[in-house]
Amino acid sequence: MTTISVKTSTEYEVIIDVDLHDRAGAYIHALIDGEIAAIVTDRVVSALYLDRLLKSLHKKGFETPVFTLDGGEASKNAYNYISLIEFLADHKLSRSDVVIALGGGVVGDITGFAAATYLRGIPYVQMPTTLLAAVDASVGGKAGVDIEAGKNLIGTIYQPRAVLCDCALLEALPPSILTDGCAEIIKYGAILDRELFCAMKAFPRINMEDIIGRCVQIKADIVSADEYETGRRKILNFGHTVGHAIELLSNYHISHGKAVSIGMAIETRAAWKMGVCDQACYDELIELLHQFGLPYRTGFSAGEISRAALMDKKRKGDKITLVFPEKIGTPTLRKADVVDLEEIIDLGLVKSGENA
Amino acid sequence: MTTISVKTSTEYEVIIDVDLHDRAGAYIHALIDGEIAAIVTDRVVSALYLDRLLKSLHKKGFETPVFTLDGGEASKNAYNYISLIEFLADHKLSRSDVVIALGGGVVGDITGFAAATYLRGIPYVQMPTTLLAAVDASVGGKAGVDIEAGKNLIGTIYQPRAVLCDCALLEALPPSILTDGCAEIIKYGAILDRELFCAMKAFPRINMEDIIGRCVQIKADIVSADEYETGRRKILNFGHTVGHAIELLSNYHISHGKAVSIGMAIETRAAWKMGVCDQACYDELIELLHQFGLPYRTGFSAGEISRAALMDKKRKGDKITLVFPEKIGTPTLRKADVVDLEEIIDLGLVKSGENA
Repeated sequence: MTTISVKTSTEYEVIIDVDLHDRAGAYIHALIDGEIAAIVTDRVVSALYLDRLLKSLHKKGFETPVFTLDGGEASKNAYNYISLIEFLADHKLSRSDVVIALGGGVVGDITGFAAATYLRGIPYVQMPTTLLAAVDASVGGKAGVDIEAGKNLIGTIYQPRAVLCDCALLEALPPSILTDGCAEIIKYGAILDRELFCAMKAFPRINMEDIIGRCVQIKADIVSADEYETGRRKILNFGHTVGHAIELLSNYHISHGKAVSIGMAIETRAAWKMGVCDQACYDELIELLHQFGLPYRTGFSAGEISRAALMDKKRKGDKITLVFPEKIGTPTLRKADVVDLEEIIDLGLVKSGENA
Repeated sequence: MTTISVKTSTEYEVIIDVDLHDRAGAYIHALIDGEIAAIVTDRVVSALYLDRLLKSLHKKGFETPVFTLDGGEASKNAYNYISLIEFLADHKLSRSDVVIALGGGVVGDITGFAAATYLRGIPYVQMPTTLLAAVDASVGGKAGVDIEAGKNLIGTIYQPRAVLCDCALLEALPPSILTDGCAEIIKYGAILDRELFCAMKAFPRINMEDIIGRCVQIKADIVSADEYETGRRKILNFGHTVGHAIELLSNYHISHGKAVSIGMAIETRAAWKMGVCDQACYDELIELLHQFGLPYRTGFSAGEISRAALMDKKRKGDKITLVFPEKIGTPTLRKADVVDLEEIIDLGLVKSGENA
């Protein structure tokens, strides 16, 4: 078992262990006064893992209303958010009860936002069932939903009461879901931890509990120092400026992990072309992405990507903070004028006739 | 001009003065980096006051998209909230821009909640156009919207960047809107400030700027000490446990001020019957409410009121905090088991055959 403390405005623990679902009821019962543990999940996750969690919660006497989303990014919308709030009200949850997010990032984000805003905030617990959610979304309290105009345009930062991460379950994920999470792990390595980056080269002969623990520790340190992303937390956005734009442009057919993979490649190539890092840094990143079968090229143009990335910052004079690796494991933050973003992204695109 | 500082997690000023709308542009320009000042208002307020505000904002070069609600409590719903967020996104507001709430509590609450959650929080300014909003809703950051299951079940606490309160405009309000605000002023007096309570006996021969300033100062002191209502801020809920229930039971045909008036009367009568205050305290309150033509009786039963009041706290063993006057100007907080609330409210109801 690995336990990591996150020291934000409210302190909480991330527990990483095998078979945590069977002990979730006891763990949550020790944290929560109330009698209702509402579960938010999706159809796929529900079929696989819900029964064990219910059994564990019932043992401790919890009532367990279950709200099931269809799943997928399209589920993380403002209308489902309102339905979820109505569901919590209909089941008469009070501020002493708890909501459990059993699922990936979509379930975690919508649940966190509902918990943050129902009755001005009630406790919630993250139980990530994807590797991506385990190493990223479930820790740090970013919560929100999408609207028509774009992803995560509604949201807040609201910390969970605990994160329970069952790593046995994560190792059994289908390859494409696992790979998505690996993209985010490679991100932590590439920008903040050379040793982690190198450890991933031995995948799948690695200890997942250790790897997840290392990512969570990195994230916990950063969000503990900068909960509201006024500075250092921006480092975690490496690959995400371009990545989010690509998700949006693909209408979310390209998954978050794969979009971040492309984003890291483009942003690092731009860094190389601008002299922020050397070519070896870029090559090493591409080689690792390639090993995981992660994508690192896109058909979208620099103009399309920069317009999508600048949704909410369109005016001359506005600045955007970009994150680049100086070398593998060492980040640098650079402010750029929004009007220069297209040019920077263009530097990062592989032109026809060029090698990756 | 009266200026009051609110020292919450973010500090801001409440400015009370005549003809503030003409100077709002300059004031907001000094606070905000951005170029867009989106205005949220309702049809009635828009017809009366929007032009002056627009002129003042245009002088300082702001773009001014306007989002107009129908008005009334029914407007403060989760679907209008989403429409407002989509509107802010469509007009490409960024975190350096500002949203202005020009209106009463409904406009202020939905605007504050949208500002709190759009892009995880952007600046907003309250410009209250009702006396009730000026002395209560516009200060302290409580923001939220209603869902089918009840009022304010979605919400958060998010402080404005400033509150601009034009008291000339407030004095010109129609009598029923003015009286609604007076109920809330009487609340501050009854529970926290005997002098203010007595000053209201001279209405309308009073200085409204002074009276508003005094209420805002009381609220500023309390929310500065207890921003998230973990303790002392609950005092401001005097009259509101019953008041909110009556609003809900009347399907919001009874206004907030009038419902709080009835709530204060019932809660104070219960206090008298329980020996928390003496009869003179109750009589003095009723006399002042009567002077303003404010209601102090209801046809709803203790059972109906307590069920509506306990929407989200229905289980045996749960506690509710009630606020009573010990005497005019001096509050006391009492915890009661939720199962006892009906009986307490019943003590507060005037039985047939009894005098008020």
